[in-house]
Amino acid sequence: MQLLQAILPRLSFGVVAAEAARQATPGYNYGHATLARAPYSLADLAALQKALLFGDDDVLALRQSAAILADQTDAILDVWYGFVASTPELVVFFGNTRTGEPDPAYLEAVRKRFAHWILDTAEARYDQTWLDYQYEIGLRHSKFKKNRTDGVQSTAQVNFRYIPALTIPITTTLRPFLAQKGASANDVERMHAAWVKSVLLQAILWSQPYVREGEF
Amino acid sequence: MQLLQAILPRLSFGVVAAEAARQATPGYNYGHATLARAPYSLADLAALQKALLFGDDDVLALRQSAAILADQTDAILDVWYGFVASTPELVVFFGNTRTGEPDPAYLEAVRKRFAHWILDTAEARYDQTWLDYQYEIGLRHSKFKKNRTDGVQSTAQVNFRYIPALTIPITTTLRPFLAQKGASANDVERMHAAWVKSVLLQAILWSQPYVREGEF
Repeated sequence: MQLLQAILPRLSFGVVAAEAARQATPGYNYGHATLARAPYSLADLAALQKALLFGDDDVLALRQSAAILADQTDAILDVWYGFVASTPELVVFFGNTRTGEPDPAYLEAVRKRFAHWILDTAEARYDQTWLDYQYEIGLRHSKFKKNRTDGVQSTAQVNFRYIPALTIPITTTLRPFLAQKGASANDVERMHAAWVKSVLLQAILWSQPYVREGEF
Repeated sequence: MQLLQAILPRLSFGVVAAEAARQATPGYNYGHATLARAPYSLADLAALQKALLFGDDDVLALRQSAAILADQTDAILDVWYGFVASTPELVVFFGNTRTGEPDPAYLEAVRKRFAHWILDTAEARYDQTWLDYQYEIGLRHSKFKKNRTDGVQSTAQVNFRYIPALTIPITTTLRPFLAQKGASANDVERMHAAWVKSVLLQAILWSQPYVREGEF
């Protein structure tokens, strides 16, 4: 094992370690057979990517960001959680409906999965497994499944309007982290633009459970 | 009047001319008393702007873009219409359901209002009148009012998913036009970021008619 660690590139070892951490995270069901099949197809995804000008260069830019972000997820989440905590309109969705206060255990459980989401987004696998997990994430924000994963008593839903909106704070605050490891200004710009498209794409997929039958 | 023209700054004269053109455009009902009141309030708007990190500097940046874009709207629309025409997934929403072909009169009628929309967005007035018109625009994309303004036979709706998605092509293709009049790279970046936020904000408001009761 010592030899294995010595000869594997640092990134590959990081990926193996990250995968073990993912599987140990409560509620992180990416790839689980229990997940429902997404109500949108890979062809729908391809059409949406076209409308978003999302191309092969964006996939490469996202994957370039994976190695840059891998050891920064905690610092990124500190910034994101700071923003949510200081915005009453958002922190309410983490509120315990009995105490009226934010639920620390709920915040922490979501935070662990959020760290994996950063790397999932950067890894940019757009296959059926990924699509099905996007649907699950959407359900968990909506009244269909919110609170159930973590067994909490909180608001019935995250209101639709905030889901696409969060594209902006997430990608704006990410930008300095993309620049932390010496990438050129042009590459930081490419990675940032790819992140904006990918997060907006996901926010659209997550919105499906909120949209009236036949209108998505 | 000659004296008046001489002493008024060019921009003010442009605004007066633009206002006359707006009022002469069929279906451009901004500020009309016939419009329904938006189902979201100015307080809802302020909360959404906060979640989008949309601040006073974005308002200034949008207004800076107004003078830059004022005489470029036709060229911008050539690019946008070129993108729609070359994307079957989008041009279908301009299709005549009897012929199966894009309807040139429909495309042209929307284009005239689209030019005003560019300047409306750049002028960044976020009042009740603006809010009510955003609601009207949303209705006109959805099955509630699509085709009615122009008396056309076309698809029943623009599917929800494409509304937030269009934030990207609109703002990506706008960027070179923001740089056309000698603004600094930093100002172009500020204006572009403000446009992304504003278009996404509008796309969220336009989505309201698609979202299930009580979930917006």
